[in-house]
Amino acid sequence: MEPHLMLSIDDIHHAARRLAGVAHRTPVITSATVDALIDAQVFLKAENFQRGGAFKFRGAYNKLASLTDDELNRGVCTWSSGNHAQAVALAARLIGTRAVVLMPDDAPRTKREATARYGATIVTYDRYTEDRQAIALELAAERDLVAVPAYDDYLVMAGQGTAAVELIEDAGPLDFLVVPVSGGGLMAGCGTAARALLPHVRLIGVEPTAGDDTRRSLAAGHRVRIPVPRTVADGQQVEIPGELTFPINRRLVDDVLLISDGEIVEAMRLLFERMKLVVEPSGASALAAVLSHRDLFAGRRVGIVLSGGNVGADRFAQLISGETGKA
Amino acid sequence: MEPHLMLSIDDIHHAARRLAGVAHRTPVITSATVDALIDAQVFLKAENFQRGGAFKFRGAYNKLASLTDDELNRGVCTWSSGNHAQAVALAARLIGTRAVVLMPDDAPRTKREATARYGATIVTYDRYTEDRQAIALELAAERDLVAVPAYDDYLVMAGQGTAAVELIEDAGPLDFLVVPVSGGGLMAGCGTAARALLPHVRLIGVEPTAGDDTRRSLAAGHRVRIPVPRTVADGQQVEIPGELTFPINRRLVDDVLLISDGEIVEAMRLLFERMKLVVEPSGASALAAVLSHRDLFAGRRVGIVLSGGNVGADRFAQLISGETGKA
Repeated sequence: MEPHLMLSIDDIHHAARRLAGVAHRTPVITSATVDALIDAQVFLKAENFQRGGAFKFRGAYNKLASLTDDELNRGVCTWSSGNHAQAVALAARLIGTRAVVLMPDDAPRTKREATARYGATIVTYDRYTEDRQAIALELAAERDLVAVPAYDDYLVMAGQGTAAVELIEDAGPLDFLVVPVSGGGLMAGCGTAARALLPHVRLIGVEPTAGDDTRRSLAAGHRVRIPVPRTVADGQQVEIPGELTFPINRRLVDDVLLISDGEIVEAMRLLFERMKLVVEPSGASALAAVLSHRDLFAGRRVGIVLSGGNVGADRFAQLISGETGKA
Repeated sequence: MEPHLMLSIDDIHHAARRLAGVAHRTPVITSATVDALIDAQVFLKAENFQRGGAFKFRGAYNKLASLTDDELNRGVCTWSSGNHAQAVALAARLIGTRAVVLMPDDAPRTKREATARYGATIVTYDRYTEDRQAIALELAAERDLVAVPAYDDYLVMAGQGTAAVELIEDAGPLDFLVVPVSGGGLMAGCGTAARALLPHVRLIGVEPTAGDDTRRSLAAGHRVRIPVPRTVADGQQVEIPGELTFPINRRLVDDVLLISDGEIVEAMRLLFERMKLVVEPSGASALAAVLSHRDLFAGRRVGIVLSGGNVGADRFAQLISGETGKA
């Protein structure tokens, strides 16, 4: 079976049944203000209101709910800059297994605290010098834990795709679906779902300019590695697209738009002031891209995933004050 | 007719019919985190998502929708620190009349901007030295405008009461309803609705410690005037309870709790970080009071009105950084 056929709309519908009553069905929010700014009909899927504060819960729970009793007795292990860590920690608590999470030592305070609050054991590493996946796999082997990848896993991707199914059910037909891209799991899941439900939808990924590994990889036709991106979008600091997500996204994605840190912060400000929504930098990047490319979207029906809301109030205050250094 | 009989649940149901399809039916939001912190079942009526960013739209629209064609041809005039101004401006635009708004010259930037965006004419005055009501009434007389009070008006109060009707419809029975108090219109409307629907509900008002005019007035048995309060809660900077709202609240309100500026900011932080909600200082004051008086609410079903979300990102950043001077 070709890699891109390893994920189908059936897998996503199956994930939706597993998630029913467990994940929140987050609202699809519209705003006359945003519509007027873009001259389009915009539908925002508010995954900042998802359990654990981001879409990541969908994939993590779908994965953990698929484990055998023996695997659940052993426990799970993951590596993540934050939102997937929180999601696995929460899913593990709900399902009744233990979680060990490897996090970068500069992960945002709120994400570390939330992960610990859900009862996971945290192990830290240096994002800029160490290979997190290698450390995590070693940890998993040592402690006999089941590895739960953040995106390179078909069950995880299938879970993420349920966000697009709900968005399309609530919004109706879309001309565009715009999704932030990091490892590519949200894009692969949502892209698979959207293309199956709306064959003519245009699928647009969004990356920070400093973290354009997927855009470069699509242009090159193979996965390209970049240095760890320094961007305010701490959820989008990956170096290379996923091994399993990339073939899927290569087939599905129509274009990848790039946005600056400044554009991300302005989108966060707009969401805060005009819509009263707290959205983290990577969660606001898709809206930022649409705001910066109005001509592309004018007159169309545009679905946008606000992927998460895990930003501390102090960090938000820094960002708004113009301190847009790395997360 | 006694003053407190000038507002009945029938007036509020009538307002609800006028507002149907025009005002947002805002969500009632629950949070396992908040429930655990207070050891209670808490239902948050998210009026930060109301049109114009605050509950004020309910009263303003109900009032304007009740004006005669002749009155609408003349236009309306109001005086407000911000949210009522925005609400009247928006309602006037929807109904097709012009609005002149008297605002304090230190009103938050976002509230001034939004009021102007809705097409109202803004006239400013000095909150600390001038009598806004006198200036507004003079303005109304000069320009032949209909005055739309922010709270001392039965149609305005009836509109505000629809928030409590929706809250109770969605949340079910409540032991407590906790409402921020400024001029007293939200309390009078919501209190009237809640007591009619739930005869045994306890009605709790909340004021900033620096702006305890209603608490003092209830203790004295008559309206007491205080200096203009200096508090971060710019929506609660009134000097004296309303002439028409006070007799209603005197009969209805069981207690008024006071909270400090620091407690308000901490509640705003909790709403931001844990619930991803942007709520302005006066909008967070009722939750702040419940968090600070856990013993009173433990084990109970508690309805709380998050009355508005109109706080600029820069102002929020200041508040979170500890700059809790006057608004």
